[in-house]
Amino acid sequence: RIMRPDDANIAGNVHGGTILKMIEEAGAIISTRHCNSQAGEPCVAALARVERTDFLSPMCIGEVANVSAEITYTSRHSVEVQVKVMSENILTGAKKVTNKATLWYVPLSLKNVNKVLEVPPIQYVRKEQEDEGKKRYEEQKLDRLETKQRNGDVILPVINPEPHTVGYSQSSLIHLVGPSDCTLLGFVHGGVTMKLMDEVAGIVAARHCKTNIVTASVDAINFHEKIKKGCVITVSGRMTFTSNKSMEIEVFVDADPFVDEPRERYRAVSAFFTYVSLSKEGKPLPVPQLLTETEDEKRRFEEGKGRYLQTKAKRQAQMQQSAQ
Amino acid sequence: RIMRPDDANIAGNVHGGTILKMIEEAGAIISTRHCNSQAGEPCVAALARVERTDFLSPMCIGEVANVSAEITYTSRHSVEVQVKVMSENILTGAKKVTNKATLWYVPLSLKNVNKVLEVPPIQYVRKEQEDEGKKRYEEQKLDRLETKQRNGDVILPVINPEPHTVGYSQSSLIHLVGPSDCTLLGFVHGGVTMKLMDEVAGIVAARHCKTNIVTASVDAINFHEKIKKGCVITVSGRMTFTSNKSMEIEVFVDADPFVDEPRERYRAVSAFFTYVSLSKEGKPLPVPQLLTETEDEKRRFEEGKGRYLQTKAKRQAQMQQSAQ
Amino acid sequence: RIMRPDDANIAGNVHGGTILKMIEEAGAIISTRHCNSQAGEPCVAALARVERTDFLSPMCIGEVANVSAEITYTSRHSVEVQVKVMSENILTGAKKVTNKATLWYVPLSLKNVNKVLEVPPIQYVRKEQEDEGKKRYEEQKLDRLETKQRNGDVILPVINPEPHTVGYSQSSLIHLVGPSDCTLLGFVHGGVTMKLMDEVAGIVAARHCKTNIVTASVDAINFHEKIKKGCVITVSGRMTFTSNKSMEIEVFVDADPFVDEPRERYRAVSAFFTYVSLSKEGKPLPVPQLLTETEDEKRRFEEGKGRYLQTKAKRQAQMQQSAQ
Repeated sequence: RIMRPDDANIAGNVHGGTILKMIEEAGAIISTRHCNSQAGEPCVAALARVERTDFLSPMCIGEVANVSAEITYTSRHSVEVQVKVMSENILTGAKKVTNKATLWYVPLSLKNVNKVLEVPPIQYVRKEQEDEGKKRYEEQKLDRLETKQRNGDVILPVINPEPHTVGYSQSSLIHLVGPSDCTLLGFVHGGVTMKLMDEVAGIVAARHCKTNIVTASVDAINFHEKIKKGCVITVSGRMTFTSNKSMEIEVFVDADPFVDEPRERYRAVSAFFTYVSLSKEGKPLPVPQLLTETEDEKRRFEEGKGRYLQTKAKRQAQMQQSAQ
Repeated sequence: RIMRPDDANIAGNVHGGTILKMIEEAGAIISTRHCNSQAGEPCVAALARVERTDFLSPMCIGEVANVSAEITYTSRHSVEVQVKVMSENILTGAKKVTNKATLWYVPLSLKNVNKVLEVPPIQYVRKEQEDEGKKRYEEQKLDRLETKQRNGDVILPVINPEPHTVGYSQSSLIHLVGPSDCTLLGFVHGGVTMKLMDEVAGIVAARHCKTNIVTASVDAINFHEKIKKGCVITVSGRMTFTSNKSMEIEVFVDADPFVDEPRERYRAVSAFFTYVSLSKEGKPLPVPQLLTETEDEKRRFEEGKGRYLQTKAKRQAQMQQSAQ
Repeated sequence: RIMRPDDANIAGNVHGGTILKMIEEAGAIISTRHCNSQAGEPCVAALARVERTDFLSPMCIGEVANVSAEITYTSRHSVEVQVKVMSENILTGAKKVTNKATLWYVPLSLKNVNKVLEVPPIQYVRKEQEDEGKKRYEEQKLDRLETKQRNGDVILPVINPEPHTVGYSQSSLIHLVGPSDCTLLGFVHGGVTMKLMDEVAGIVAARHCKTNIVTASVDAINFHEKIKKGCVITVSGRMTFTSNKSMEIEVFVDADPFVDEPRERYRAVSAFFTYVSLSKEGKPLPVPQLLTETEDEKRRFEEGKGRYLQTKAKRQAQMQQSAQ
């Protein structure tokens, strides 16, 4: 579809959240279709996890986004989908890869939303494809367990914070979950949640550096808990780490099923977003360093540094590999 | 894309206007891409005309719309695009053709919006394709001239109208044209206009028969005049004709360029929409007959009858042809 | 326009904010048109104030909203518009008055956004209309000065609040001002701001009483400061008073012009919203009493009680008057 002014920031760069939402919609369609391809109980595919994704080049207003999706692995109860987003300037014909993303879906019965159904197996062209898929499956399963434990943290308000501290830029929004945010099962689309997360992370980043900012990457996101129509969700973000030219922001999504439900507020999703600051010519700018004050902030900064160095090392390894 | 609750009426049937908007977006993308495929002045394709289109089967919430577009003819200054919409139930895998539409676009220069550029010619597989296209081109050119003359009519308000008269169901809405309604040139997307027209026509039809109604077809629509960002548009509709099971509604779009422009209000578009009334089981219901009062209303009713009989005859001819 | 699922809460009642937004759009169109009706500098009418408005009867999904607007007074630099909203059930034909609102607009030059232009005078049918209008004009002018002084308050966060305290239900959201939120001048439409304010107030009310809630009335709202495209706005609300069957919520709007602007965060708007809690059958329910803890909270509760009793007395006086 064509990117409109509302999909973009004032500098004309399309929000990462808009792209994440398109990716998830494509993934939900292809995996729901696949899981219903054999006779059996009708189901809807629910997003369980998105792997880390890099935004390779910014998309602009007036460009057309082409989204293509493919099922690349199936386990007994889950589907791996790889989605590619190309941006096309229809005036010049130029095309660029904007994103590649990997998503995991789980089929939930339309009759009983808590029942996970079996996934019809796919055919692999080569045996290695199945083995590699299985390896990816095992890795993400492990990672999902880990984040589930980390998920207890809460963002506390800070009175009169100093510039460039964590408290200065931390932000949160509330959103009432309406019908058009939801799937047929009455639960929020993963893509809607990711769009709100990117919105909050973007505001945190802009508050910190007061320039035009764009999403550079999103770490793996795990969707541990479903969010129902009518909930109020609180999306909060705080900066955890800055390198010379990037900022890492941690985002939490909490759901409040406050009408007609005995249940307490719960943590539904959490993730790390990385942003860069851009000059008017679109070049990366240096970022003001984050001032950490408490022990927790210093610990999170070190953890963020760890993730940053790990990603950098991985990327260099990949570049050497592809250069060979 | 997946059809959401906001795309549909209370009975779950997707608004014809939503489908028309998707069709037009696909048409605008493919024709803009084609017109920029050769080196030369960059341009944006503007919708000039949509041929009559029938809504073959209603689409529902949760279904996925697949839109495919193809360029089928080019004249010196215009492009013909044929668009096909398939609805797919991703739970059952069932696919149906919902619509086929033919649209005409004209490339306008990005630098000078009043300059119509030349269209790169397409290659035809068979010579007859070019000849048939040329015939369609000549026919629509003639028809555009005719509607331009008809366009002077105005819908006047009626005080205390009786049920089933023209005045009883006539309706209008105003809309302030914002940035996300517009193309790169700052003019309203044809699809946005058609969606508003379908909304008004649907209200006229529902007021008349007080049941669940759906768009059955739209007559050819000619876009004589562009509508600029910042305009207020008034979309008004009145019923012109009823058969046993269908209603014809005439819709006018008037633009008021009230800021920054010395220009008077002008008629931008007009069209006829046909609606049917559906029972809860989705079967067509008989429609209350339209009570005509004035001479003009009686004349319009006869003209509507003419169009109705003509369409019916054409359809029967086509069915006989395809049965042979 | 037809009310859609996203315009309403889970019980199907249309959000007061959606109605306020439609009212403001109608007011902006009619006053911009009027202010441009004479030769002179082109201008856009900006919302300066909305008088107190009561929501007389709830509107539901599938109903059609009819909005009509009329200019009722002009001073040298401002326009008074009265807007009436009728809800129409198009299946039964039943119509009800939903709202009557009075709005004040000021014409700002398109060339120089800080220049207020002169308003062409309107003709009054009777001399008394002009005198009454002048009285309303003087009254609102006084009230605007008063709120400007009150506007300094800030909502501080509370850690681990008890149920039914002020801190327990207080809420805030942030919103990045995008192109479609704005007028031609690049400033937020007053209606967009009011819709966000109603959203926050509704969440405060729902958090307090955990039932289905609807907007009953909105106190006069003054728009002291414009909000520019690209700002982040923080909308925060806290409960100030509860009667047996109603809740009063104070809402603040703060703007952060954080990109490309040296300016500090500033208070743009503030207002009081009144909500009632409804049973599944749509009857008003008793409301849990607000627990006030600090001196400030107790003072605000008393002030809210004052406003509540004043409004009640006014309404009784009006009912006696109309009964005579």
